[in-house]
Amino acid sequence: MKADAACVFCKIVSGGLEAPIVFEDEATVAFLDNRPLFHGHTLVIPREHLETLPDLPPHLLKDFFSNIQMICRGVETAMDAEGTFVAMNNRVSQSVPHLHVHVVPRRKKDGLKGFFWPRTKYNDDEQLNDVRSRIRSAIGKIKK
Amino acid sequence: MKADAACVFCKIVSGGLEAPIVFEDEATVAFLDNRPLFHGHTLVIPREHLETLPDLPPHLLKDFFSNIQMICRGVETAMDAEGTFVAMNNRVSQSVPHLHVHVVPRRKKDGLKGFFWPRTKYNDDEQLNDVRSRIRSAIGKIKK
Repeated sequence: MKADAACVFCKIVSGGLEAPIVFEDEATVAFLDNRPLFHGHTLVIPREHLETLPDLPPHLLKDFFSNIQMICRGVETAMDAEGTFVAMNNRVSQSVPHLHVHVVPRRKKDGLKGFFWPRTKYNDDEQLNDVRSRIRSAIGKIKK
Repeated sequence: MKADAACVFCKIVSGGLEAPIVFEDEATVAFLDNRPLFHGHTLVIPREHLETLPDLPPHLLKDFFSNIQMICRGVETAMDAEGTFVAMNNRVSQSVPHLHVHVVPRRKKDGLKGFFWPRTKYNDDEQLNDVRSRIRSAIGKIKK
């Protein structure tokens, strides 16, 4: 199993660094974020040092996301929340280069908006169709 | 397969409503968000009307997230991006109650911060350990 001696999340996995762990199994560790958006904000990581979501190997996909489903339910129940926000940053804005999924408890009146960022638009159908074609073509070239 | 006649995403799945689809297979449809954070912002949905991530049945987990990995790569390549933001809102801030995963191309100088929301903290270890215990206990009661 890949590990990176300099990675703070690998240190949590190995036990070299203590963290408030809320769940762990053979492939996954989940612990409280120390700068939570709200109390109960949990980070879910694979034990293996994998940088981003696309790097997660096929044999881990089902168990990892099944654990995330369970953690969503657990965080929501434990924090008396009404929903969750589940997110990951791949490379850009990724503070630690070890895949981590944020599971954040949400309430309708918690003062946050779902998207928080100014949205843009497509100028016209031509621009939209150009973007569409580029993405379709790029996906078409990827071997699953 | 469950569908909801009133659901705008079910209409896209059935072909009753046109959308700029970038990928589809037996279980998944992906199309451009019409109010993108950035051009290339894609929504990935299961064909079946399932409300939230925890509702996705085990037999769909691997294929659905394998498709999301592929769409991350495709969006990043097509848009010359340096990374992606992958997120879903479960119930709170969820505009359409049909599971949809946002895949947003990101660049280091795109002007966005990863988290965008004021972060909070735990007052002391007692408060942190209380939250930790509640989540551990809630997860422990969930049958996978």
